[in-house]
Amino acid sequence: MPDRVRVALIGAGRLGRRHAEVLASQIPQAELAAIADAHEPTARAAAEATRLDRWTTDPEELIADPSIDAVAIASSTDTHAPLIIAAAEAGKAIFCEKPIALDLEGTDAALDAVAEAGVYLQIGFQRRYDKGYRAAKERIDAGEIGRVETIRDAMRDPAPASREFLATSGGMFRDMTIHNFDAARWLAGSEVEEVYAIGAALVDPMFAELGDVDTSIVTLRFASGALGVIDNGRRSTFGYDVRTEIFGSDGALFVGQQRDTPLLQLNREGVRHDHVYWFLDLFAEAYAEELRVFVAAVADGTRPGPSGEDARAALALAYAAEASRRDNRPVAVSQFDRAPGSA
Amino acid sequence: MPDRVRVALIGAGRLGRRHAEVLASQIPQAELAAIADAHEPTARAAAEATRLDRWTTDPEELIADPSIDAVAIASSTDTHAPLIIAAAEAGKAIFCEKPIALDLEGTDAALDAVAEAGVYLQIGFQRRYDKGYRAAKERIDAGEIGRVETIRDAMRDPAPASREFLATSGGMFRDMTIHNFDAARWLAGSEVEEVYAIGAALVDPMFAELGDVDTSIVTLRFASGALGVIDNGRRSTFGYDVRTEIFGSDGALFVGQQRDTPLLQLNREGVRHDHVYWFLDLFAEAYAEELRVFVAAVADGTRPGPSGEDARAALALAYAAEASRRDNRPVAVSQFDRAPGSA
Amino acid sequence: MPDRVRVALIGAGRLGRRHAEVLASQIPQAELAAIADAHEPTARAAAEATRLDRWTTDPEELIADPSIDAVAIASSTDTHAPLIIAAAEAGKAIFCEKPIALDLEGTDAALDAVAEAGVYLQIGFQRRYDKGYRAAKERIDAGEIGRVETIRDAMRDPAPASREFLATSGGMFRDMTIHNFDAARWLAGSEVEEVYAIGAALVDPMFAELGDVDTSIVTLRFASGALGVIDNGRRSTFGYDVRTEIFGSDGALFVGQQRDTPLLQLNREGVRHDHVYWFLDLFAEAYAEELRVFVAAVADGTRPGPSGEDARAALALAYAAEASRRDNRPVAVSQFDRAPGSA
Amino acid sequence: MPDRVRVALIGAGRLGRRHAEVLASQIPQAELAAIADAHEPTARAAAEATRLDRWTTDPEELIADPSIDAVAIASSTDTHAPLIIAAAEAGKAIFCEKPIALDLEGTDAALDAVAEAGVYLQIGFQRRYDKGYRAAKERIDAGEIGRVETIRDAMRDPAPASREFLATSGGMFRDMTIHNFDAARWLAGSEVEEVYAIGAALVDPMFAELGDVDTSIVTLRFASGALGVIDNGRRSTFGYDVRTEIFGSDGALFVGQQRDTPLLQLNREGVRHDHVYWFLDLFAEAYAEELRVFVAAVADGTRPGPSGEDARAALALAYAAEASRRDNRPVAVSQFDRAPGSA
Repeated sequence: MPDRVRVALIGAGRLGRRHAEVLASQIPQAELAAIADAHEPTARAAAEATRLDRWTTDPEELIADPSIDAVAIASSTDTHAPLIIAAAEAGKAIFCEKPIALDLEGTDAALDAVAEAGVYLQIGFQRRYDKGYRAAKERIDAGEIGRVETIRDAMRDPAPASREFLATSGGMFRDMTIHNFDAARWLAGSEVEEVYAIGAALVDPMFAELGDVDTSIVTLRFASGALGVIDNGRRSTFGYDVRTEIFGSDGALFVGQQRDTPLLQLNREGVRHDHVYWFLDLFAEAYAEELRVFVAAVADGTRPGPSGEDARAALALAYAAEASRRDNRPVAVSQFDRAPGSA
Repeated sequence: MPDRVRVALIGAGRLGRRHAEVLASQIPQAELAAIADAHEPTARAAAEATRLDRWTTDPEELIADPSIDAVAIASSTDTHAPLIIAAAEAGKAIFCEKPIALDLEGTDAALDAVAEAGVYLQIGFQRRYDKGYRAAKERIDAGEIGRVETIRDAMRDPAPASREFLATSGGMFRDMTIHNFDAARWLAGSEVEEVYAIGAALVDPMFAELGDVDTSIVTLRFASGALGVIDNGRRSTFGYDVRTEIFGSDGALFVGQQRDTPLLQLNREGVRHDHVYWFLDLFAEAYAEELRVFVAAVADGTRPGPSGEDARAALALAYAAEASRRDNRPVAVSQFDRAPGSA
Repeated sequence: MPDRVRVALIGAGRLGRRHAEVLASQIPQAELAAIADAHEPTARAAAEATRLDRWTTDPEELIADPSIDAVAIASSTDTHAPLIIAAAEAGKAIFCEKPIALDLEGTDAALDAVAEAGVYLQIGFQRRYDKGYRAAKERIDAGEIGRVETIRDAMRDPAPASREFLATSGGMFRDMTIHNFDAARWLAGSEVEEVYAIGAALVDPMFAELGDVDTSIVTLRFASGALGVIDNGRRSTFGYDVRTEIFGSDGALFVGQQRDTPLLQLNREGVRHDHVYWFLDLFAEAYAEELRVFVAAVADGTRPGPSGEDARAALALAYAAEASRRDNRPVAVSQFDRAPGSA
Repeated sequence: MPDRVRVALIGAGRLGRRHAEVLASQIPQAELAAIADAHEPTARAAAEATRLDRWTTDPEELIADPSIDAVAIASSTDTHAPLIIAAAEAGKAIFCEKPIALDLEGTDAALDAVAEAGVYLQIGFQRRYDKGYRAAKERIDAGEIGRVETIRDAMRDPAPASREFLATSGGMFRDMTIHNFDAARWLAGSEVEEVYAIGAALVDPMFAELGDVDTSIVTLRFASGALGVIDNGRRSTFGYDVRTEIFGSDGALFVGQQRDTPLLQLNREGVRHDHVYWFLDLFAEAYAEELRVFVAAVADGTRPGPSGEDARAALALAYAAEASRRDNRPVAVSQFDRAPGSA
């Protein structure tokens, strides 16, 4: 392993651009080596902003470069699995935004390639690196709240994404709830055995036209016996709403943050403060921290995760939730397990 | 209607005693006329504490007294329906703690008697008179949050009640969740059409022995299209946990209160405040307010509710939740509707 | 001492009326025996509201009545000292609103009468019986924050009182800051040795016309070495602002309460809650608790205070603050000590 | 002006190192050109961490370099004035940590040099670039709270600095309160005309030995008529305590932040959260923002400040406070005005 981990970024959209900035300047152990984006002006702009000479529209070129140690994939979802497979075959460590693929087959193919190559794959479930969530997990693991009994997890976007994005997003459970599925499994320290999901298009008829929902509630039964519930909305009116409550036998933990600016305004209308609006603001630190962990893992040979199997488990929960919603019945998650003998 | 409404209290246990104090001194329009309790020392002690000469072990005696305008029933659940029927036949206005009965038949019989007599019946769903809940309801009704889309409602007791109490309580849904069912219907301004419930005995094996659960989650589909979720626990570790979030198309309302004493303590361990522990503390004002409203209603001839039909609707939801939990499937609430032609 | 303490209320204005209600119904050990108010309709209305037969415009009549154990004085300030003297000579226990008098001479005369008669006098510094302040004092006394080093105390009225009231109020320091002076001495557990005060008429020119201020800051040096600061305003715009911070060598305590209704409203403008507006709301419990303590003290023969000497000490601080503001220099409080040989 | 502003950092201690990181990577418009530190290993380590080839122990070398546009001075206080003078004479734009000098004479000499050279000088009063303070200032300037009437400003360090540092720090008012003096002037939009200060050594006898205080309160009279109070402590027990309240005729603003991790822990002891401990954490964003503003100002030729005159004004307040504490009397700030005819 060289002194510094040389990372190529693939995909320089909104979130990829953020990753580029972090890799370029906030992780001493990392060197941002090159940027690829299918859209040439996007690639160039990201390179210029990070004072990088090397950019391309062809990710394969970077994957083939032996001087590059690792790739960070933030391109469109449909490219994730092929890029993971190519990078794994080239022996690169891989950071990839969720999901690996919108289907379990594509996911499994990518995971097989990763397993065969023995490379490290870390998924961009950034919540695991958020300061509040990390502290909650540490206290749970330290036994501070005893046995986990109930998890209440909520996420609401400030406003719906565009129709274009939503049409290919895979629907609420695979696109949005998947973050909650991962967080719930991780915090509970237990797998989900059964889910029941309800959903509705209340925010915008567009969701119904797409066969999707914009409001949903999913209940969870964990193998540990604990219960859970996730509720999501595509519009919160007041900003990005991410809160989780974990109730244990000896205490409870409430994760979440509402105020953006540390300022209260008081007058005849009462007391008012603002609310964090945007996920890039709410998770600014988490996005940096997950890359810090990734780079350190590549350097050290550790595998802190979240792993590709974590991504698959969350996707299986999304499948189960979708089946539950469609058929209006509780659904065992095991039916989305990987076929025996595979991998 | 006389100058002051003469109210007889039936049942002077923990909550009944509180009602006695409120009726005796905090409602100028009311006169606490007499107290009945099956347990003679309890009746006498409550009378002495409120400087009342008249107490009895026989509620029928008070119901038969024409000088008494209204009865407030806080005796054990199994006596509610018979007392309501007797009081209705005697033409008294009736305030009764929830539930009317643990079964729908008993409930319907009591409601029939009330309907026939044309008397006013108000149920002790005190949450409707809590300052936070009232303000939330007013703002919803004023259109301040637009259309209600999602309701998240939580309630946790500080610690489990005694085995004796629990054994005859009717189980979590009829004893505890019934408060949330009423609040959800009321805040949503819409009936629940379908429920799905999961539950577990995680807090104490006693609950499993009783065929009951101590932890549960119930999802709700409202006729309006809105979604809801209620989660309950028989032990919260940190005090009485009552919080409700209502998300609408134009805003959200979060009801609830955590701090009891307006005091923060700051030191090396961080910042700490206490939490309200006991329902009689949390709802102190609500218990007084509901009786104030009842007495005013008796005096004015208005019927602000919550009515006996509200109590029945909440009980039907508890039945549906129990059926759902037993069969692990979503259950239509309509199957617990009153038989056509009844009442 | 009879079974119940028979208390006569003198002065049935806004606060006196509140005292009447508490004495009539919220303290089992007390009996409200009679009400006196110089304004006949006020006396009658208060008696009717508390279902009392006995009311009068002549307080002397009640003071002379041997069946009355104690008087609660809430009449206008100029009557306090004469009534205390008369009540003391009649051997009554005395609860009196602050201040005893606007001048030190009148105060001393009343205290001399109380000392000579050996009766119990409790002053209506209700803050000492507020739940938050009581808890803070208990934690300080239990050593939880170590040695007290700094006290920051703030009080703002929602809006100025009427010109009539203000003209005879004695000015900001004697009328308003006196509460903070008492709280500061009590929480610090130490006397104030020197004060420096600045003030201005910023809210309303009326204050300047009256030779008074509406905004002020007073710094305090305690005998213990601790420092303190009190800031006051006659208008807060957002409600009644009462907050105190106590910093010690091992921790800090912040007392105060902002939210009235336990409700958050969230929308595009951010997060909003209300603020308690009125002192009768903020201190509702404290006003009841101080009378409970008074009645118990009369029954038990204890003397929990705050005593007449506490009232004098706070008044001396107000005098020192006024001298400091007038001369714009720090002023030793000792110059307002009682003349040696007096009392 | 070249494409990017080339900045040399002088002084790479704790805060200087932070500035280096920000200049190296978080401001696209800036280029960190070189680092100077009198301590050779410190200079080298800072250069390595920011992947910079150029470092030196001689700041003069960098000041003399015509390719460098601006210097950021974070070296020890005694070097500030000479470096400012040298940099001004060399025509560099200057960012300098507070204070310019511990005495008014040194400050005036530096300001004269800056004025003569016509270069831009910005002082590191980072609070002006904190998100909460900026928002407060914007709302005040927008008239949202009307006329400013009272300012309450508090700052407490988590724990005392070392004796070595304190011995040459200039004392509490020049070292610590100077931040509050600047914030108070800036938020009030008015100069302070008179101060009165009290102080004590309560935290550690070391402060008395140094002729310094560790706890202080300063009252302020503004030219606008507004009143202010600043209280400081060298040890807060619970972390870094920075809070400001501004009361106006139409509302109030409370700036400050307590919680570091967005996590509540609830159990039998109540509800607990942590508190931000360290100023580099509390002001992380502000330290980046002030340099962003500085670099943009250099590029654009604007002079947003805080200026050298602001630094002098705050220092004059510190002198006045010290005189007030020494003589125990209010002190007019005008006596520390610059001599007429100077500059």
